[in-house]
Amino acid sequence: SRSLQKPLSVAYLGPEATFTHQAAIQRFGASAIYLPVRSIEAVFREVEGERANFGVVPIENSTEGVETHTLDMFMESELLICDEIILRIVHSLLSFSSLKDIKRVYSHSQALAQCRGWLEENLPGVEIKAVYSTAGAVEKTLSDREAAAIASHLAGEIYHVPVVAKGIEDKSFNFTRFLVIGREERAYTGKDKTSLMFALKDEIGALFHTLEPFWKFRINLTKIESRPSRRKAWEYYFFVDLEGHKEEKNVRKAIEELEKRVTFLKVLGSYPRRERE
Amino acid sequence: SRSLQKPLSVAYLGPEATFTHQAAIQRFGASAIYLPVRSIEAVFREVEGERANFGVVPIENSTEGVETHTLDMFMESELLICDEIILRIVHSLLSFSSLKDIKRVYSHSQALAQCRGWLEENLPGVEIKAVYSTAGAVEKTLSDREAAAIASHLAGEIYHVPVVAKGIEDKSFNFTRFLVIGREERAYTGKDKTSLMFALKDEIGALFHTLEPFWKFRINLTKIESRPSRRKAWEYYFFVDLEGHKEEKNVRKAIEELEKRVTFLKVLGSYPRRERE
Repeated sequence: SRSLQKPLSVAYLGPEATFTHQAAIQRFGASAIYLPVRSIEAVFREVEGERANFGVVPIENSTEGVETHTLDMFMESELLICDEIILRIVHSLLSFSSLKDIKRVYSHSQALAQCRGWLEENLPGVEIKAVYSTAGAVEKTLSDREAAAIASHLAGEIYHVPVVAKGIEDKSFNFTRFLVIGREERAYTGKDKTSLMFALKDEIGALFHTLEPFWKFRINLTKIESRPSRRKAWEYYFFVDLEGHKEEKNVRKAIEELEKRVTFLKVLGSYPRRERE
Repeated sequence: SRSLQKPLSVAYLGPEATFTHQAAIQRFGASAIYLPVRSIEAVFREVEGERANFGVVPIENSTEGVETHTLDMFMESELLICDEIILRIVHSLLSFSSLKDIKRVYSHSQALAQCRGWLEENLPGVEIKAVYSTAGAVEKTLSDREAAAIASHLAGEIYHVPVVAKGIEDKSFNFTRFLVIGREERAYTGKDKTSLMFALKDEIGALFHTLEPFWKFRINLTKIESRPSRRKAWEYYFFVDLEGHKEEKNVRKAIEELEKRVTFLKVLGSYPRRERE
């Protein structure tokens, strides 16, 4: 029975209260055991070493672009992509002071950049300090009552710091996409996505010819990225996301044809295609 | 006569002694005036505002991949690419301590990533701190004698910090490619490269169809990158490098045909295609 099962364990890029933590909780709920680790590589190692069932890592932000460390990990890891999580990034201003008494604002430089307009309008002239993580910023507010932090709402709950203002980011389309990584294949759901990586032949038209099978079988590519192979200068791996599950006929045929046109191919997984949460 | 000419001024991503500085010196020599500035954006601003004739910025590392800030600047700047510089990156560990007494290692996050294996092997458990430039890291070693910096040999010379270890990068094929940006077109040399950016139509096969003209006119693509447009979530700009000058007939024809297939196209410049220096 379910009560005898070991609870699910989920490693994520920590520390606690980061947006990755928030994404993990949204997917795996309150009963899972969460293991914050210090790097993207460490998330992969926890899952590979079977110390966690799944891992959650950031893969792409709608403003900042791809998280290259996550892509690079797939070059050496045999883990599969089991799911994606798309999270709207909502920044909160956390402080024990009210807005008019705040003297300093701490946050990660990316979060500060994303809230620059709001800060100029609502806290003009206040000192802005970049720290290494949003969670680290919240810790500052515990000892310095005139300080505020820009962080997630979750960070306010975990550290018991009041939310002074919510939704202070300048653009409303700030999303981060996370991947759930694991050791097992994910079954067909009817609305899936498949991620591939491959290496091109060294010839004119090589990339063009690898894309032809997708066109022929009417498969929509939602993403293409290139990364240095790390084996040879100026040699690249391509990472492609496409709509469909690898068990579907058109996807399977496209992959078969692609395989003949590249020097290396790896299917990173098929998984449910998500909208924003 | 030449002696009456104002010397060439070159803005670069500073501070002094960065690899960008080294690349700039290799291209423009000893008689140019070098202006170190604090960000990639500031390099563009110096050249746009005619306070410098040229700018030098990193664009790509053979291990770490593309410098996204440089690509993103071309979305808003009208500057052109006038040249490229390819530099072999040799990292040194600089410190006033011997290896066994080093407690902290500072560097730019890319340099830290490039030496990760060496650090794990030779300085296990030592604190790793990312700072905004390799030269900034060297400055830390001046006040903190238990600190080391990963930086260029040139930085050790300029700041008078001893070299503890040299060539500590994990891969021997570590090259960085820099761009020279300016306000004027570069003439045909016979061995050139052209950089383009474009936005895809939102339809199946869109990327495939944009690559077809290059195949048709037998043009070799050396690079393709995508970046978020920053106007809308999950909308991308593509950046392509190809062999040939935009005045060459086949390149001109391919660009004409490409233009009909995309929603936006900008030629970022044609410039001499370089080997490593």
